[in-house]
Amino acid sequence: MELIIGKVESINKGDNYCNASLTLEDKKHFNVKLNMNDDSKLTIGKVFVFELETFYKEEVKQYKAVSITPIETSDLSKVEKNRLYSAFYNYAPMPLNEIRTSIELYLSNIDNKILKDVTTAVYEKHESKYYLHPAATKFHHAYIGGLAYHTLTMLKLVDAMLMVYDYLNKDLLYAATILHDISKVDEISGVDGEYTTEGLLLGHLVMASIEIDKAATSLGLDQTEEVLLLKHLIVSHHGQLNFGSPKKPQTGEALLLWYIDSIDSKFTELKSALESTKSGEFTQSLAVLDKMRFYKPKM
Amino acid sequence: MELIIGKVESINKGDNYCNASLTLEDKKHFNVKLNMNDDSKLTIGKVFVFELETFYKEEVKQYKAVSITPIETSDLSKVEKNRLYSAFYNYAPMPLNEIRTSIELYLSNIDNKILKDVTTAVYEKHESKYYLHPAATKFHHAYIGGLAYHTLTMLKLVDAMLMVYDYLNKDLLYAATILHDISKVDEISGVDGEYTTEGLLLGHLVMASIEIDKAATSLGLDQTEEVLLLKHLIVSHHGQLNFGSPKKPQTGEALLLWYIDSIDSKFTELKSALESTKSGEFTQSLAVLDKMRFYKPKM
Amino acid sequence: MELIIGKVESINKGDNYCNASLTLEDKKHFNVKLNMNDDSKLTIGKVFVFELETFYKEEVKQYKAVSITPIETSDLSKVEKNRLYSAFYNYAPMPLNEIRTSIELYLSNIDNKILKDVTTAVYEKHESKYYLHPAATKFHHAYIGGLAYHTLTMLKLVDAMLMVYDYLNKDLLYAATILHDISKVDEISGVDGEYTTEGLLLGHLVMASIEIDKAATSLGLDQTEEVLLLKHLIVSHHGQLNFGSPKKPQTGEALLLWYIDSIDSKFTELKSALESTKSGEFTQSLAVLDKMRFYKPKM
Amino acid sequence: MELIIGKVESINKGDNYCNASLTLEDKKHFNVKLNMNDDSKLTIGKVFVFELETFYKEEVKQYKAVSITPIETSDLSKVEKNRLYSAFYNYAPMPLNEIRTSIELYLSNIDNKILKDVTTAVYEKHESKYYLHPAATKFHHAYIGGLAYHTLTMLKLVDAMLMVYDYLNKDLLYAATILHDISKVDEISGVDGEYTTEGLLLGHLVMASIEIDKAATSLGLDQTEEVLLLKHLIVSHHGQLNFGSPKKPQTGEALLLWYIDSIDSKFTELKSALESTKSGEFTQSLAVLDKMRFYKPKM
Amino acid sequence: MELIIGKVESINKGDNYCNASLTLEDKKHFNVKLNMNDDSKLTIGKVFVFELETFYKEEVKQYKAVSITPIETSDLSKVEKNRLYSAFYNYAPMPLNEIRTSIELYLSNIDNKILKDVTTAVYEKHESKYYLHPAATKFHHAYIGGLAYHTLTMLKLVDAMLMVYDYLNKDLLYAATILHDISKVDEISGVDGEYTTEGLLLGHLVMASIEIDKAATSLGLDQTEEVLLLKHLIVSHHGQLNFGSPKKPQTGEALLLWYIDSIDSKFTELKSALESTKSGEFTQSLAVLDKMRFYKPKM
Amino acid sequence: MELIIGKVESINKGDNYCNASLTLEDKKHFNVKLNMNDDSKLTIGKVFVFELETFYKEEVKQYKAVSITPIETSDLSKVEKNRLYSAFYNYAPMPLNEIRTSIELYLSNIDNKILKDVTTAVYEKHESKYYLHPAATKFHHAYIGGLAYHTLTMLKLVDAMLMVYDYLNKDLLYAATILHDISKVDEISGVDGEYTTEGLLLGHLVMASIEIDKAATSLGLDQTEEVLLLKHLIVSHHGQLNFGSPKKPQTGEALLLWYIDSIDSKFTELKSALESTKSGEFTQSLAVLDKMRFYKPKM
Repeated sequence: MELIIGKVESINKGDNYCNASLTLEDKKHFNVKLNMNDDSKLTIGKVFVFELETFYKEEVKQYKAVSITPIETSDLSKVEKNRLYSAFYNYAPMPLNEIRTSIELYLSNIDNKILKDVTTAVYEKHESKYYLHPAATKFHHAYIGGLAYHTLTMLKLVDAMLMVYDYLNKDLLYAATILHDISKVDEISGVDGEYTTEGLLLGHLVMASIEIDKAATSLGLDQTEEVLLLKHLIVSHHGQLNFGSPKKPQTGEALLLWYIDSIDSKFTELKSALESTKSGEFTQSLAVLDKMRFYKPKM
Repeated sequence: MELIIGKVESINKGDNYCNASLTLEDKKHFNVKLNMNDDSKLTIGKVFVFELETFYKEEVKQYKAVSITPIETSDLSKVEKNRLYSAFYNYAPMPLNEIRTSIELYLSNIDNKILKDVTTAVYEKHESKYYLHPAATKFHHAYIGGLAYHTLTMLKLVDAMLMVYDYLNKDLLYAATILHDISKVDEISGVDGEYTTEGLLLGHLVMASIEIDKAATSLGLDQTEEVLLLKHLIVSHHGQLNFGSPKKPQTGEALLLWYIDSIDSKFTELKSALESTKSGEFTQSLAVLDKMRFYKPKM
Repeated sequence: MELIIGKVESINKGDNYCNASLTLEDKKHFNVKLNMNDDSKLTIGKVFVFELETFYKEEVKQYKAVSITPIETSDLSKVEKNRLYSAFYNYAPMPLNEIRTSIELYLSNIDNKILKDVTTAVYEKHESKYYLHPAATKFHHAYIGGLAYHTLTMLKLVDAMLMVYDYLNKDLLYAATILHDISKVDEISGVDGEYTTEGLLLGHLVMASIEIDKAATSLGLDQTEEVLLLKHLIVSHHGQLNFGSPKKPQTGEALLLWYIDSIDSKFTELKSALESTKSGEFTQSLAVLDKMRFYKPKM
Repeated sequence: MELIIGKVESINKGDNYCNASLTLEDKKHFNVKLNMNDDSKLTIGKVFVFELETFYKEEVKQYKAVSITPIETSDLSKVEKNRLYSAFYNYAPMPLNEIRTSIELYLSNIDNKILKDVTTAVYEKHESKYYLHPAATKFHHAYIGGLAYHTLTMLKLVDAMLMVYDYLNKDLLYAATILHDISKVDEISGVDGEYTTEGLLLGHLVMASIEIDKAATSLGLDQTEEVLLLKHLIVSHHGQLNFGSPKKPQTGEALLLWYIDSIDSKFTELKSALESTKSGEFTQSLAVLDKMRFYKPKM
Repeated sequence: MELIIGKVESINKGDNYCNASLTLEDKKHFNVKLNMNDDSKLTIGKVFVFELETFYKEEVKQYKAVSITPIETSDLSKVEKNRLYSAFYNYAPMPLNEIRTSIELYLSNIDNKILKDVTTAVYEKHESKYYLHPAATKFHHAYIGGLAYHTLTMLKLVDAMLMVYDYLNKDLLYAATILHDISKVDEISGVDGEYTTEGLLLGHLVMASIEIDKAATSLGLDQTEEVLLLKHLIVSHHGQLNFGSPKKPQTGEALLLWYIDSIDSKFTELKSALESTKSGEFTQSLAVLDKMRFYKPKM
Repeated sequence: MELIIGKVESINKGDNYCNASLTLEDKKHFNVKLNMNDDSKLTIGKVFVFELETFYKEEVKQYKAVSITPIETSDLSKVEKNRLYSAFYNYAPMPLNEIRTSIELYLSNIDNKILKDVTTAVYEKHESKYYLHPAATKFHHAYIGGLAYHTLTMLKLVDAMLMVYDYLNKDLLYAATILHDISKVDEISGVDGEYTTEGLLLGHLVMASIEIDKAATSLGLDQTEEVLLLKHLIVSHHGQLNFGSPKKPQTGEALLLWYIDSIDSKFTELKSALESTKSGEFTQSLAVLDKMRFYKPKM
């Protein structure tokens, strides 16, 4: 029996037929017939492995899916899965394993043992999705690895800012930067995903502060000042009540975390917008930048 | 040796003296000398038990404290402590044990077992302070038992509203009403208290949602929809991002909780303001009511 | 000659023809030819009685309207008219005569004679339209009897709230609740109606306060405190200057009126939205609820 | 028996004495003893006629008031009263009778009979206070005749604007300008006065629209478009919901009325502030001008 | 060879053809073929002179443009150009040369020599475009001569206001009114134009204040108070920071300039909207008037 | 004759006396008598050289000032003046000549010749005051050299950010950072100074953009894109219209300039506030940080 791997572009369904249109790795289109109601196994924009049987109708070869498996849960090797992700999805502008190596280096450079232990525990619990998730469904870093890539650039900004303001606490900044958006992996269901019920009702700020408390409790560290500060940095990192933070930043580190999160979302988006704009012209209106258009100088 | 119980009104300290001025149960004033630095054991506005030794200076009898114990941690019986609290502090307009009986009746009337177990666990952990705490340091219900009294009136409002809107979930409303302000006992340090560091950095909304998750985790219930909804009601009960809720109400019960919390803070405060206003005149400007003044009709 | 009763769905008009497409009581469609310019006698969405003559064109039977009468002013009996209203329009979820009986019972329970007389006078002047009008053209209670049904639920909320806050004045609350939206019958022209010029230039708050003053003047009661307070409740019942109240609520009763008006518009709309939503999913975005979507629990 | 006329500056009252300190027409101070509780007959800042008896205490001549009459209700002739008003109060920068003559000329120049009749009726009902009242208790035109003087300047602005925008309706503008603030005479209790209960609960916009409707009703004109437009201009003349207008201006005349009301309150206040400022310096912060300070040029 | 003058309505371009569709002076349509890429010489909405050669394709006469010249830079006489502008574009409701004569009369009536010299210098530098430019691309005065016509009406308003508030400085008001929008000729590229890069990055307020300083510097007048005040009036004439003024008005003249600019943009737009509205109805929603609709009285 | 140098602390003046109270370099107090009206030569908070004559009154030696010279215009050597500034005033936390050397190094590292020439011209014109001025009269960097020190830290932030976002233009950022606040030296009159008339009417954003244009005009560079962009960065560096920028940032460099200006004002102020706060406590409310208080961790 034949296997085919493809990304679902559209589904057509009538009273007595059900088809899906796929894009294959080589960008070609491919039509596959489905058993009635098997369309509920598919999600548009996602990649699946289809086991096919063939038959002829009016002398044209036809394919029918006898099993459908999401690539994530298929038997394929991890290496092969990653190769396929790269082929089918948009990716961070840096290999995911390099991003991972860099972030884990920052994690290992946290000197405060309490912060290191709690951060490591939360990180390891979410690690598998952490390097696949986008940073946001729209607006900025909306590609595979977006969350991790955004985190890494923010860690570099931490280093840059510490060179000028050396009174801030490096460990707290590393820990909170690594964890600040980690609950997005449960707030949003995937690359082309939607907000989950938990995401809508609690949001990643409250969710992550609960995760940190959970990890700290099992380590017996939930009454430490380190964990209190870490939770504060998480819940305050949107900076303003209006943007969903229940508390405004009240430590220097919390204030900086907000700034660099905001800066990176804007300047990374701006960079990519300028790359597709001619010199002497303005970019399109940019959602993450207050819907402003930006000028690309000729000089 | 003599014992005296009094509320600290003021402390005078110089290079070589240290005194406190007390108010006794019979409203009389009493001066007590302290060992240097013993003033750090006192808090203005709080009641303490003083063990005294007496001596004479220029033929005037003097009293010096040889030990100082906060009434909470003294050897006095619980009955005697409560009698003294009533004598020294402002109290809710209903006996605390009646408030307790009523609230616990509501708790026992929660039918959903998950909600009942989690609510009970969080309630019991905070119970000792729950009936002493004010609902806010300023603005409304600023007296001993204020938190519990405010909660009880809100539970009555839940019953009243359910008579009109019977599609709302009673259990969720009882549970969330009982818990909505419970972390104020850790956010604010006491009747005359100040915000704690944890209170300022996290706030009672996030603190209570963490408490609920902690209790649910130890009961193995943290992945239930009931607990998710309960946490949502807690974090959304200030109604607007601007008022410190990281999420706006997104269930009917959450919306109602916000309304009745807001209504009770306003109408209880208004009642007390009107009681001290003459007919045909306006109250003072009321902080909890947008600084408006309210008219007391003659009719 | 034949009579037919139908609701106007659309009008087609050309240089030398003029037709209307009707829906009949049995939901069937029916085409009627009109004399040129008779289309000005019709309003889309309204029900009319057509007197018809028939003729044949290309062997097809045709109908032409020789007279057109709005159902309101037709010769039909009141009973028949009401039966037809029920058949053609959306209606409050409770029979109109039950709503009327209940509201008039509240009116009769006003003990203060001044308030009772003035309220009765204004009520009776507007009574005929009061039980047909919607509460709003969009947003909430947009059906026949919507205004009266909304008023009745608010009266029940008054009773519920008075059980908890017994210091508020029942008579003032009954009177103002009954009258608060009464001038909507002149502000908006009907069920499918539009704002009238007077409605746009003055609004139902100012219009109703003038109506109350007019009635009170003819009763010689316009200088009483009762009438002043009643007018205040009317003009302040949108609660905020921004929502069109020229004064904010400045009595307890005025504040409560605003709250229950707001609560009923939201919770009645939410009820109906949840009824058409599956458990575990979110409603559509709801205009009257800040465009938020609400979650329907599975529990 | 002696008579003395003076303005009350302060009242001193103890357990067994009660005095008032007056300023006389010649700016001298004068002390008068009162019968206990006669202080309730006085208002600080107002002028009264005192009938005095004299006696000696420790060889000092003393004066005691045996009757106290507000100047308004005293037996003095109208001419004498006006002379005394001028002596004791701040006045508009133009004689009141000239202001009256000018305003009544504008009134007589209203050509539309409906507008003229209704405006005249309302004007005549309020006429006695109209020429004494200030335009506001603080902020602008806070002197006797302030209301009338402000109205007259606005009428001149109407003429000036009509020269440029001749499509606007002169009669409507004259009528509404004359009546726009007329209910301030009942909203505020007098020159040094306070807001009345009616003023606080309804405000002069709603009060005046009711007055217009009352007058129109008794003339049988309350259903005319003229009266509807006049009421609209009155309720919308604060321009924005936020400033207390239940409706925004929706005719050209309504829009202009708002503009010239706003312009005159600002430019008249600015004129007076600049008069007491040196060239090359800034005025004090001006409440009616957004608390801004304005520069007085040297050029 | 043939010449034709037309306004470009649309351009059609394919792999091997390029046409433009024109409107001629007599409103007829005309198709002209272009050399490939000659479309870059055209701007939709602008008038051009086309030199044509003719040929036949399938027996139909065809026209091809061999040269394309914008009407502004063509050889046509100034008189002819102006005649063509009038034929092809919308124009101010008053002949441009009358507007010019009136504005220059105001300019000559500035008595203060410094203000007159600087204003004249800036005016003369921009004069050629000043009488062609619209006042805004959308919203108000969007036609040829709009800028100058708006300026002239504002000058009339200055005269009207000075009759009431004679303490304001006429010279400063004349000068600033003439110059307030002068840099719009460089901020916006023309009648159907778009914002220029300089317009977007600096805006006409900053651009005009730089122009004034440039002119004053070359006259040796840049350190005078007159020039400082003139620059202040320019940068503050949008009245509020939110509307793009870096400083709020801080002289009486600056405040008045803002008011009359705002008044004229609104009342001129309203006039034209009312002209196309029936009595007893409302205008369309008007962008410059907060999107409000205005009522046209029947009276 | 004796000379004394002191900072004026207070001035006492009566009908026939006039004294000043000084602080000397050694922090001692010193009283000096003045000729009547010589107090107008003094400014509180500033340092002056007094030439004294002595005399005896009631056997006490007295000092009278026969001449008064501000230290800036005195005959003292530059070295001596700088020594005195350091002794009498608060200073940037780094020697002024080191700040100067660093800033001039950045200036010399601008590669684009146009930007370098214009920046150098503007810098040299303002250089003398540039190293003495504070960055603001209140809020942040309110000490001698504050402006230059703030500028230098921002230049370091530019370098740090360029390491992460290398697509931004270094030259434009250096030039604009050096010039962004340069007109504060004319907007505010000195260390203890007040806003100047020009500062209030135009503000340092418009003033600096005019200065840049003036310099560019005299170099023949005012039509270059470099100068346009530089002016844009200056006028947009407050980031929002509400904060006084007539245009929002519309290039990446402009956006970054706003961010680092905002960051440095906050983090430098926070640093100094934390230095005077104990671990485990909160700072005072900080004006430049939204009046928030910040927590100083114990960890």
